[in-house]
Amino acid sequence: MTRDDALALDARDPLAPLRDQFSLPAGVIYLDGNSLGVLPKATAPRLQQVVADEWGRDLIVSWNSADWIGLPQRVGDKIARLVGAGAGELVVADSTSGNLYKVLSAAAAIVQADAPARRVIVSERSNFPTDLYIAESLARERGFELVLADAQRLPSLLDTRCAVLMLTHVNYRSGRMHDMAALTRAAHEAGALTVWDLAHSAGAVPVDLRAAQADFAIGCGYKYLNGGPGAPAFVWVNPHHADRFWQPLAGWMGHAAPFEFTPGYRPAAGVARYLCGTPPVLSMAALECGVDTVLAAEPFGGMAALRAKSLALTRLFAERVAALCPGLALVSPADDALRGSQVCFSHPEIGYPVVQALIARGVIGDFRAPDILRFGFTPLYLRFADAWDAAQHLHEVLEREEWRRPEFNRRAAVT
Amino acid sequence: MTRDDALALDARDPLAPLRDQFSLPAGVIYLDGNSLGVLPKATAPRLQQVVADEWGRDLIVSWNSADWIGLPQRVGDKIARLVGAGAGELVVADSTSGNLYKVLSAAAAIVQADAPARRVIVSERSNFPTDLYIAESLARERGFELVLADAQRLPSLLDTRCAVLMLTHVNYRSGRMHDMAALTRAAHEAGALTVWDLAHSAGAVPVDLRAAQADFAIGCGYKYLNGGPGAPAFVWVNPHHADRFWQPLAGWMGHAAPFEFTPGYRPAAGVARYLCGTPPVLSMAALECGVDTVLAAEPFGGMAALRAKSLALTRLFAERVAALCPGLALVSPADDALRGSQVCFSHPEIGYPVVQALIARGVIGDFRAPDILRFGFTPLYLRFADAWDAAQHLHEVLEREEWRRPEFNRRAAVT
Repeated sequence: MTRDDALALDARDPLAPLRDQFSLPAGVIYLDGNSLGVLPKATAPRLQQVVADEWGRDLIVSWNSADWIGLPQRVGDKIARLVGAGAGELVVADSTSGNLYKVLSAAAAIVQADAPARRVIVSERSNFPTDLYIAESLARERGFELVLADAQRLPSLLDTRCAVLMLTHVNYRSGRMHDMAALTRAAHEAGALTVWDLAHSAGAVPVDLRAAQADFAIGCGYKYLNGGPGAPAFVWVNPHHADRFWQPLAGWMGHAAPFEFTPGYRPAAGVARYLCGTPPVLSMAALECGVDTVLAAEPFGGMAALRAKSLALTRLFAERVAALCPGLALVSPADDALRGSQVCFSHPEIGYPVVQALIARGVIGDFRAPDILRFGFTPLYLRFADAWDAAQHLHEVLEREEWRRPEFNRRAAVT
Repeated sequence: MTRDDALALDARDPLAPLRDQFSLPAGVIYLDGNSLGVLPKATAPRLQQVVADEWGRDLIVSWNSADWIGLPQRVGDKIARLVGAGAGELVVADSTSGNLYKVLSAAAAIVQADAPARRVIVSERSNFPTDLYIAESLARERGFELVLADAQRLPSLLDTRCAVLMLTHVNYRSGRMHDMAALTRAAHEAGALTVWDLAHSAGAVPVDLRAAQADFAIGCGYKYLNGGPGAPAFVWVNPHHADRFWQPLAGWMGHAAPFEFTPGYRPAAGVARYLCGTPPVLSMAALECGVDTVLAAEPFGGMAALRAKSLALTRLFAERVAALCPGLALVSPADDALRGSQVCFSHPEIGYPVVQALIARGVIGDFRAPDILRFGFTPLYLRFADAWDAAQHLHEVLEREEWRRPEFNRRAAVT
């Protein structure tokens, strides 16, 4: 395969027009959409409208006239289409961490009601730290035990002590994807519930929460959903659990009738009880623009078409790096079925400065401690030639030892 | 007093130039800054910069280069100046409800460590419902009891069973202000801790958390701080408690070293452990613009000068309404020392349609169920002539029975 072959793939890519939805900086190959999605062109004018017209001119009337109050549901319904959830089953609220606390609390309460002896939350040792921190906190509070294991050992921990299996569908470092349906089935057979973090899945890989019969899911708005830095997160609850328990962050937006201003808490019907405070309107408006960029793929085959292109991109990049950069070890699965939308390599020493040197060349990936070089591929705006060129840049950074420069070895606050 | 007297007051008001900071719709007298503050002129261009340059052009680099990661502390330090807190003691995060859950959890844990028999959270029956919902939820979870009473009975409930006194400093309906220092002293003498909700205080009345020796405080960004609809909230913890316990929403941003990606939770030093998820950058940038509009009063005497004008405005309005609208009963305290920055009246039947008829005239207040007509006065942008004119409009709505029109009697989703 040559660079011309990559250009030919781009020329006949039916998803290529979707790139035009984004405001991409010139000269940049952006392989970090799994950390922060790029800016949709629609976002700035939409925010301008929300700020100047809805807030500035119409003020509080916009809670009704612009349906600000309906944003958690409206944007939630759009995300639902991307993850195999039904309308009315998913809301946008708070942060991923906050939502995890809610669903883990609810899952623990549901299991406890039937099986008080089940007191173990099982998760993967390499799960994203915030998930583990929240689970650790909840376990401490409720007298649960958090048990961590490597992926292959997880099934053996689904026993009569297990209350909840909490996993991130696609691992943030390795890009390895769990089989959601199989693990959910195994958890249910063992009498446990499942909580899935879709941070690296929503908008990146096909997800079918209903078909998998998952119990709870949460996810992030600022990665593949392109919602902007720190965008609100989402929460989904399987309808057969939604009315059963309420979560502890029982703020007024989850109340059955918040504007009656009555003192006793009555949870709203369904997933709305997973709302807490007043919706962050500016952030939710930006998130809606981001979600729309993914929904724009629906006429072109939707998530299935995005997935096919994503796999082709990551395969091309992994193959080129394997050929050009023998010092890097592939961490992501070579098997398409196990790989999310990213490709990661490890290097025992120089991962951090290599990533900085690449950024200086306009190839933006990121470093994840202690040793991972991570490259996310968003098929909405990446081209096959980008994957080709990125591998070439990586090769040159290594061959010319650009990573040795002192400025690439000074750690920033945020890596 | 005549309307010309009101105009004369405006002509010699040293705070009058502060109004020019805001983008106010023409023909509107906005008396709802206690629900949603108005739009600062600086907000739209600042958001444009954050979106186009920091997000769109610089992408993830902005976490460092634009110090996105420091927003919770930077904006927090600005709010600290308005509420008598020190630098580094207050952070912006999440919602008011979410932050209340955190500090109430921490307060309960601190008391429990020394006095396990203390299991009562005391609050005011007419506290804002979301505060009561969160306290009810936490009490249920931790085996506490939530005891509600009218304001005058609160001191009698500060006994050996009381763990936490949780109050909103200025009541959302009546506008009545508690004596924070006296009640905190009484709580401490009884062996309890205090949690103060500053939703209707921050930017509205002088608050001195340190002088009052308060234990915990939370507050809202979208009311008198003009941060925009659903703006992030803030949380303050007295430094002598800050390192003692960590709160249950133990997300990665509250970790001592979030970018080391280590599995075990180690809380950050101080109030930073009250952070949870990734900071919502767009909302925080807008909030910073709002907070700056209040800090702009510092050269003119700051919160003390704003307070003096606020009292003069609310006094003028209350006196005019008393003279012109005998059917309305004043609910807010006539005594300046007890009144926040709002004036409320009750009417047993027609509160809702009267407020709608006023809105149709461009005088925006709000209705709070079941019977309250609420008018907030923000001295940053309101004039004495506005207070005079608003009373006149209210008089005409009542005298001409405009509230009878059917369109004013149809309830909207959000009141």
